[in-house]
Amino acid sequence: MKGYAMLGIGKTGWIEKEEPKCGPLDALLKPLAVSPCTSDVHTVWEGAIGERTNMILGHEAVGEVVEVGSLVKDFKPGDKVIVPAITPDWGAIESQAGFSMHSGGMLSGWKFSNYKDGVFSEIFHVNEADANLALLPEGLDIATATMLSDMVPTGFHGVELADVQFGDDVCVIGIGPVGLMAVAAAAIRGAANLYAVGSRKKCVEVAKAYGATDIINYREGDIVEQIMEKTKGKGVDRVIIAGGNVDTMIQAVAMLKPGGRVGNVNYLGTGDFVKIPRLEWGCGMGHKTISGGLMPGGRRRMEKLASLVLTGRVDPSLLLTHKFNGFNHIEEALMLMKSKTADLIKPVVII
Amino acid sequence: MKGYAMLGIGKTGWIEKEEPKCGPLDALLKPLAVSPCTSDVHTVWEGAIGERTNMILGHEAVGEVVEVGSLVKDFKPGDKVIVPAITPDWGAIESQAGFSMHSGGMLSGWKFSNYKDGVFSEIFHVNEADANLALLPEGLDIATATMLSDMVPTGFHGVELADVQFGDDVCVIGIGPVGLMAVAAAAIRGAANLYAVGSRKKCVEVAKAYGATDIINYREGDIVEQIMEKTKGKGVDRVIIAGGNVDTMIQAVAMLKPGGRVGNVNYLGTGDFVKIPRLEWGCGMGHKTISGGLMPGGRRRMEKLASLVLTGRVDPSLLLTHKFNGFNHIEEALMLMKSKTADLIKPVVII
Amino acid sequence: MKGYAMLGIGKTGWIEKEEPKCGPLDALLKPLAVSPCTSDVHTVWEGAIGERTNMILGHEAVGEVVEVGSLVKDFKPGDKVIVPAITPDWGAIESQAGFSMHSGGMLSGWKFSNYKDGVFSEIFHVNEADANLALLPEGLDIATATMLSDMVPTGFHGVELADVQFGDDVCVIGIGPVGLMAVAAAAIRGAANLYAVGSRKKCVEVAKAYGATDIINYREGDIVEQIMEKTKGKGVDRVIIAGGNVDTMIQAVAMLKPGGRVGNVNYLGTGDFVKIPRLEWGCGMGHKTISGGLMPGGRRRMEKLASLVLTGRVDPSLLLTHKFNGFNHIEEALMLMKSKTADLIKPVVII
Amino acid sequence: MKGYAMLGIGKTGWIEKEEPKCGPLDALLKPLAVSPCTSDVHTVWEGAIGERTNMILGHEAVGEVVEVGSLVKDFKPGDKVIVPAITPDWGAIESQAGFSMHSGGMLSGWKFSNYKDGVFSEIFHVNEADANLALLPEGLDIATATMLSDMVPTGFHGVELADVQFGDDVCVIGIGPVGLMAVAAAAIRGAANLYAVGSRKKCVEVAKAYGATDIINYREGDIVEQIMEKTKGKGVDRVIIAGGNVDTMIQAVAMLKPGGRVGNVNYLGTGDFVKIPRLEWGCGMGHKTISGGLMPGGRRRMEKLASLVLTGRVDPSLLLTHKFNGFNHIEEALMLMKSKTADLIKPVVII
Repeated sequence: MKGYAMLGIGKTGWIEKEEPKCGPLDALLKPLAVSPCTSDVHTVWEGAIGERTNMILGHEAVGEVVEVGSLVKDFKPGDKVIVPAITPDWGAIESQAGFSMHSGGMLSGWKFSNYKDGVFSEIFHVNEADANLALLPEGLDIATATMLSDMVPTGFHGVELADVQFGDDVCVIGIGPVGLMAVAAAAIRGAANLYAVGSRKKCVEVAKAYGATDIINYREGDIVEQIMEKTKGKGVDRVIIAGGNVDTMIQAVAMLKPGGRVGNVNYLGTGDFVKIPRLEWGCGMGHKTISGGLMPGGRRRMEKLASLVLTGRVDPSLLLTHKFNGFNHIEEALMLMKSKTADLIKPVVII
Repeated sequence: MKGYAMLGIGKTGWIEKEEPKCGPLDALLKPLAVSPCTSDVHTVWEGAIGERTNMILGHEAVGEVVEVGSLVKDFKPGDKVIVPAITPDWGAIESQAGFSMHSGGMLSGWKFSNYKDGVFSEIFHVNEADANLALLPEGLDIATATMLSDMVPTGFHGVELADVQFGDDVCVIGIGPVGLMAVAAAAIRGAANLYAVGSRKKCVEVAKAYGATDIINYREGDIVEQIMEKTKGKGVDRVIIAGGNVDTMIQAVAMLKPGGRVGNVNYLGTGDFVKIPRLEWGCGMGHKTISGGLMPGGRRRMEKLASLVLTGRVDPSLLLTHKFNGFNHIEEALMLMKSKTADLIKPVVII
Repeated sequence: MKGYAMLGIGKTGWIEKEEPKCGPLDALLKPLAVSPCTSDVHTVWEGAIGERTNMILGHEAVGEVVEVGSLVKDFKPGDKVIVPAITPDWGAIESQAGFSMHSGGMLSGWKFSNYKDGVFSEIFHVNEADANLALLPEGLDIATATMLSDMVPTGFHGVELADVQFGDDVCVIGIGPVGLMAVAAAAIRGAANLYAVGSRKKCVEVAKAYGATDIINYREGDIVEQIMEKTKGKGVDRVIIAGGNVDTMIQAVAMLKPGGRVGNVNYLGTGDFVKIPRLEWGCGMGHKTISGGLMPGGRRRMEKLASLVLTGRVDPSLLLTHKFNGFNHIEEALMLMKSKTADLIKPVVII
Repeated sequence: MKGYAMLGIGKTGWIEKEEPKCGPLDALLKPLAVSPCTSDVHTVWEGAIGERTNMILGHEAVGEVVEVGSLVKDFKPGDKVIVPAITPDWGAIESQAGFSMHSGGMLSGWKFSNYKDGVFSEIFHVNEADANLALLPEGLDIATATMLSDMVPTGFHGVELADVQFGDDVCVIGIGPVGLMAVAAAAIRGAANLYAVGSRKKCVEVAKAYGATDIINYREGDIVEQIMEKTKGKGVDRVIIAGGNVDTMIQAVAMLKPGGRVGNVNYLGTGDFVKIPRLEWGCGMGHKTISGGLMPGGRRRMEKLASLVLTGRVDPSLLLTHKFNGFNHIEEALMLMKSKTADLIKPVVII
C-alpha cells in the first residue's frame, strides 16, 4: 500500500509498505478525508518526537471500515467512521485511573504517526475498534467531521483543564485551529469576557465568530499589560494556552487571578523548562493551578463532540480554509500547513 | 413607609411600617424595579414557609442606595445596584464551608420575605452591603437586571448542580422562568441535545430561543417514555428539575443514565417524601447522584451573571412578558403571577 | 466441574456443569479462598436480582490462574491473583465515562453470580484478565486478600461517595462487614468524630478498633435524635449507608448538615421508593447530596487497596470471624451468612 | 504595649507600641502561647516580603480575649481561643469565590506580621473575630493547640492540594514541621506508600511516627532516582512540596506519574522562576497538575483541625521539641528557629 511518510527528520515522501494486520479487536480502514496537523510539521521538521524512519504521517481522519477483527461487535466493513487522534488501550492501568490518553505510559494513547503508521495511507489500522471508532452520524459533513479527530477535542480539553465557570473572564493564547476551538468551547462553557490572543486576520475573524469579545494583538504591546488594562488590573479567571512556547506560561500565570487555572494544550517541542514566574505565582502560595494534557480520545468523546456539531452548538467548518480533492494532494496540504500562509487555518483533503 | 405585604396565610395588602434601621455593615435601598416570584405566591397562598404576619413580600429587585452603614466602603447613596434574593452572612461557618446560602442554618441566606421584610417596600434593608450588592453596570437595562436577583442564578444553579459537560444530553423539567434560565444555562455550558419539558406556547417559544432542541409535552404522553424514545433507550446524562412536585424525582431518576446527575432547583412546598424509584436508581447502586440547592447569592455571583448578560451570552429579557410602571402596580403583578395567564412568563414593575 | 449453585429462588445445592470457555482476553481460575456475601443470601432467598436457575454463586475470591487467552500478556497459569467482584468491560462507553461498574448497562460490571457463574466452582471465568486481575502481593495472606474482592472496595467506596474531608463528622449506618470497612475508610480519609450505628457486640468491638469514636445503638432510641444530641443539634457532615432498607435514607438525610453528602453502598432489594424527607432535605434546596453506587472493580482498584493493607493502613483480617478449610465447606459458610449468628462478621473458606 | 519586632531587614528587638484599636467586628487578645515560624526568619533575615519597619512579628498563637467589638456575638473577654495565621475578610470577592486566603488580593488573608503587627505582643488584634477565632476546646493542651495556627493547616493543605486518594503512593519533600504535618495528613487521607524526603534524625523519627513508610535521604543520592527505584520506575501519584527552593519543582514533576498532582505549600522566597521540566511534564501534555497555595484560615478550619486532634487522629505535640516559659523567651525561641539546631523541629513559648 501507498502512504505519505516521514522518511527521517526533515524529509518526507511517498512510500510503499505492507498492509497492517488486523488483530481480533482491531479494524482496518481506508481514509475518506484527512487533515495534516501542525504536529505533523513538528514531527518531521523539528524532530519533536525524535527520529522516525519511513513512518506514515497523519492522525486526523474520517474513514471507511474495510476489515474488522473477530471480536469486534459494533462495526462492519462499509461503515463510515470518525477516527480520534488518540486511540487508548482501554484496559490499561492509566485508563482505569481516568487518563486513557496515557495508557501504557505518558502520551502513549497517541499512536498514529507516533508509535505506528498514521492515516495518510491507503489503509490504516485502529486498535480496539469498538472502543475507539464512532459512526459518522447522518447529516455530518465528512470534511467537518475530520476536525473531530484532534482540533475540536484538543481545543475543548483546554477549556476543561482550565475549568471555565459561568461568567468567567477567559484568555485564550494562540488562535490557530486548536486555539479557535478553545475560544468556541469557552463560549459554550460559560465564559463572559473572552480574550483571544492572536494577530492573523483570518484567525481573528473566526475567533470573533466563535465568541471572542476582545482580540489581544501581541504586536501591539505586552499581552499581560493589555489584559490587565482591560480587566482593570484584576486579571482573568482562566487561561488556555494553545500556542507560543515554554515561556508563554510566564504570561499566562502573570495575567491570572489568585484561585485561577491555566489549561495548556500546546505541545511544547523545545526548551528545558516551562517557567512559572515566582512572584506572580504568589511565591508558591497563590492558588494559580497549572494543568496541561493531551486530548481524551476514544469513541465516547467522538460521539459527544459530534453531537455538539449536529445540534449546532459549534461549527468547526469555519476552520476549513483550504480543501483538496484526491489522495495525492496530501503532500500539498502538508506543505501548506508547514508554510502557514496568511489565509490558512486548516486544510482538509477529501479522498 | 408603605409596603405590599402578606397579612397572613391567604391574605395580602398594603401596609404602613417603620423604616428598617441601617447597621454599620448594611444599606437601605429604594426599589427601582421589582418582580414578583412564584415563591411569593407559595408563601402567601400555600403557606409554604409557615405563618407570617404583616411581612412585606418580594425578593427580586434592582434598587438605589439611600443610606449606608459606617463600615460600608464600596457603595454610597445614589448608587444603582442589583440585589440578590439570597444575601448571606459571609462570616458564618456554613459560608466558610462554601454554602453561604445556608449561613446561620439551612436556607437562612434567604432573608427577604422570609425572615425579614422584602423589597415590595418604599425602603428595604440589605445586610453586609459590600458583600451582597453589585453595581448595576452601564448598558444593563433595569428590567432585565431584575432577573439577576433570582431567575438567572436559580436556573443557572440547576445546571451547576447537574454538572453538565460538553456534549451531554440534558433534560430540563419545567419551563417557567427558572426552567427557561436552566435551558439557557445548559446551552452555554455545553449541552448537546436539550430536552425541555413543558406545554405553554409562550414558554415553548422562549425555550427554543434559548437552545432547547426538543420540546417534551407531558400532555402528549409519559415524559420518561418520550425521552427514552428520543434517546434510543439510553436516557439522558443530566436532569434539571425546575417544576413539578415531590413525585417529579421519580421521572427524573428514571430517565437518567447510570453515572448521571439530577440538579433540583424547584422549591418543594408540600408532601412528606421526595421519592427515588428504587429499581431505576440501580437498587441504590446506579451512581445516579441527586442534588438540590438554593441559589448562591452575594455580590460576586451578581457580577458574574451580569457579565454574561453584558457579553450577550444570555438574554433574560425574553422572560419579561409583562411590564408595569409604578409602585402601585406591584399588587397587579403579583396577582398576575398567581393567576398565571397563558401568555405569562414573568412580570416586572418599574418604579 | 462442580459448583455450589442457586437452583432457583429459595433453593441451593451442588451441581455439575461444563467448564467455561476461555476467550482470547480471558482467564480461567481455580479458587484458593472464597467468601460468601450477604448479597448471595439476598440473591437466593429474596430473589433480589430475579429468577436464576442453576447459577453458581459467589463473587469474592482469591484464585490461581489455570488458563489464559491468547491476548493475555500479564498473567500465566500458576499466578495467584485477587479477583474483584466487579469485572468491567473496559472499552464500554460507560467505562470511558468513568463508570466501569456500569459497563454495558446499569450494574452490568457485576457479572459473577449475576450474569454468569460465580466463584464457588472448581473453575471460574474472568473476562479481560489483564485489566481485571491483580497479582496477590507477597506478604498478603490469602484469607485477608479475599476481603479485597468486595468488602474493602465497597466500604471504601461509601466513603468516596460521601467525599469525607479533614475533620468531618461522619456517621456510618450499619456495621456489618461493609459498614465496618466504611468505618475504617472514614478514619483513614480524615474523619474526626465517627459515629457507627449498630448493636451486635462483635461488630461494635471491631468498629471501635477501626476508629469509631461513638457507637449509636438503634435499640436505645431513635438514631437521628442520638446523633443530634451528640452533635449539639448540628448533625454530621457525611453519612455512609451500609445497612438498613429503603427507609434508612430518611434518617440519613435528617441527620445531615446542609452542604453534606450521603453515600449509599447498601444494595436495596425491596420496596418501591427510597424516601427523601422533604422538609429535612430543605424542600429540595438544602444542598444535601445523595449518591449511591456499586464498587469500582478492576485491576487498579485491587492493587491500590492491597497496597493499603500491605502498608498497614487497614487490616481487613479483623472481619474474619469464621474460617473453614476445604471446598466442601462453602455450603456451611453460606448458611452461616444466612443465619447470621451473633458472633459472625464474615466467614472465609480456604480451599 | 511591648512586642518583639522586626526593626528592619536583618534586625529584630523589643519595642513599645500603642495598643491596637478594636473595631466593631474585631477582638483584642493577649497571647497564652506563641510559636515562631520559619517564615518569621525569612521575613526578617531574607526580606522575603520586603522592607518592614518596627513590625511586631509572629502569627502562631493561642490567646485570651481581652476586648471585643460591639458586633461580636460569639466571644467575650476571658475566652481562650485558637488564632489562625490567616484571618480573611470573609465578605471579599475572593472569599466568595472560595479563596478566602486571598481576600483583598493575593495572599492578603495573611495579615499578622505581614500587613499588621503580629502576635509576639502583649496585646494583638484579630479582624472579624466571630469568623476568625475558635474556642479552645476542653482537653486540648495550649502548646499543642498553637500548632493549629499554621503548621497543621499548612501541612494538611498540601495534601488537599495534591488530592491524595485511597492507596496512592505519595512523596513529601521536606520534613520540617510543615512537611511532617503533610506526612501525618497523607497517612490519614488514604496514602499507602508514603515517601518522606529529609535527613535530620529527629525529623526522620517523627516522620516515621506519623506514618512515613520510607525515608528518602537526599544525601544518599538523587531523590528522583531513589523514588524511581522504590516504585519500579513508575513514580508516585502525588507529591507534596514542603521544603527546598524554586528548583524542587523539577524533581517533583520528574517523580510524578501522568495524571498526578503536585501540591506546594513551601513559601518560595527567592529566584525568578519555578521550573517545570518540559520533557518530564509530557511536553505540556502529561496531565501532571501543579498547584500551590496558602493555607485556608478562619474559624471553621480551626474547629475542624482541633477536632482531628481531640479524636486522636493526629498528634501535633510530637513537633514540640523545645518549650519555653515566659513572654521574654520569644527572642530565644525565634533565634533557635533561625539557627535550626539538629534536634529542633518547633519551639513553643508558654506565656
